[in-house]
Amino acid sequence: MRIVIPLYERFTALDAVGPYEVLSRLPGASVVFAASSPRSVRTDTGSLALVADAAFAEIDACEVLVVPGGPGSRDAVLDPALVAWVQALHQTTDWTTSVCTGSEILGAAGLLRGIEATTHWSRVDALESFGATYTARRVVVQGRVVTAAGVSAGIDMALTLAALIAGSDVAKAIQLGIEYDPQPPFAAGSVVAAGPAIVELVRGGAATR
Amino acid sequence: MRIVIPLYERFTALDAVGPYEVLSRLPGASVVFAASSPRSVRTDTGSLALVADAAFAEIDACEVLVVPGGPGSRDAVLDPALVAWVQALHQTTDWTTSVCTGSEILGAAGLLRGIEATTHWSRVDALESFGATYTARRVVVQGRVVTAAGVSAGIDMALTLAALIAGSDVAKAIQLGIEYDPQPPFAAGSVVAAGPAIVELVRGGAATR
Repeated sequence: MRIVIPLYERFTALDAVGPYEVLSRLPGASVVFAASSPRSVRTDTGSLALVADAAFAEIDACEVLVVPGGPGSRDAVLDPALVAWVQALHQTTDWTTSVCTGSEILGAAGLLRGIEATTHWSRVDALESFGATYTARRVVVQGRVVTAAGVSAGIDMALTLAALIAGSDVAKAIQLGIEYDPQPPFAAGSVVAAGPAIVELVRGGAATR
Repeated sequence: MRIVIPLYERFTALDAVGPYEVLSRLPGASVVFAASSPRSVRTDTGSLALVADAAFAEIDACEVLVVPGGPGSRDAVLDPALVAWVQALHQTTDWTTSVCTGSEILGAAGLLRGIEATTHWSRVDALESFGATYTARRVVVQGRVVTAAGVSAGIDMALTLAALIAGSDVAKAIQLGIEYDPQPPFAAGSVVAAGPAIVELVRGGAATR
């Protein structure tokens, strides 16, 4: 089972690595990171690069496509080669998925028109501009299109997908393998839980890059 | 504030990328990935490599050290150059931390003798062989040494650390920025929750690599 994860400049690392860490553990899984050419691709912070071993042009089919998000997705949706490749690959997949603003790239490829989808909580309008209906659910399954909310939601999405692909016992074994028994020290992971003051901190960029 | 993350062959990607995604968002943070030489370093699956921009020898001080785990830690604890570098760097840090079996590398550097620490649930004996007392807590703070349980626990560890470094509002803003509102589809992230049949699946390697 081939799982393809495209990278582009200024993607968010955890968007890609969360699902990779889960899906690479599926029996028979083979994960390929791809980019416009085989090269290292810098994340949004500039302090990390991941290696894409394959060029988009080398890959014309896969079972699972996982499109990460990040600040760079604003440029990526305007890259006709990337968008056309996503569109073409989607014709071959069992599952076409996104994490965070990766859903905008699915949107640009026309894959979200008239369906429910999710994205990072700060980018709802951008998502809906592609004809999707935003829902605040963390993982949204619509036929074979699966979108996840911001960044860390890719882990929950991938476990959901693992169960759909290989059954719940395999998904549970993967969850135990990565000891995913989350215990965040605060209840601040959603807009509602965090409250307006923390939302303002994030929007202002004061506490985060 | 310099945050250093060492990489070695067959580390687990999420061990490094989880804390990176959180700590890189701290105000004034500068993250450096390092290896024996500046190069790309393959993870345990072989299908992903992360780029280390610096050589260990170039880094002689940092505020935060984050040592990831993975199958490769069994070799890493036997690498005298890596262990000596961790030992020397620890003399300069505010916080010396590990994720998963990264704690064995701290152990090999003599940093865990007589204190409580944690690791992946399957590697308790290896951790204790370095003189640490295993505890099943997800994040263990002992003075300025902080260890996290398996793989995904690095996210919880890093949020705990972010609060210790920059206060709880900043940590909450980072949590909201990465939308860390975990909703795993199963309760199978710990040995107790998963139960013996799933533990056997993981130990047997049938469901995971």
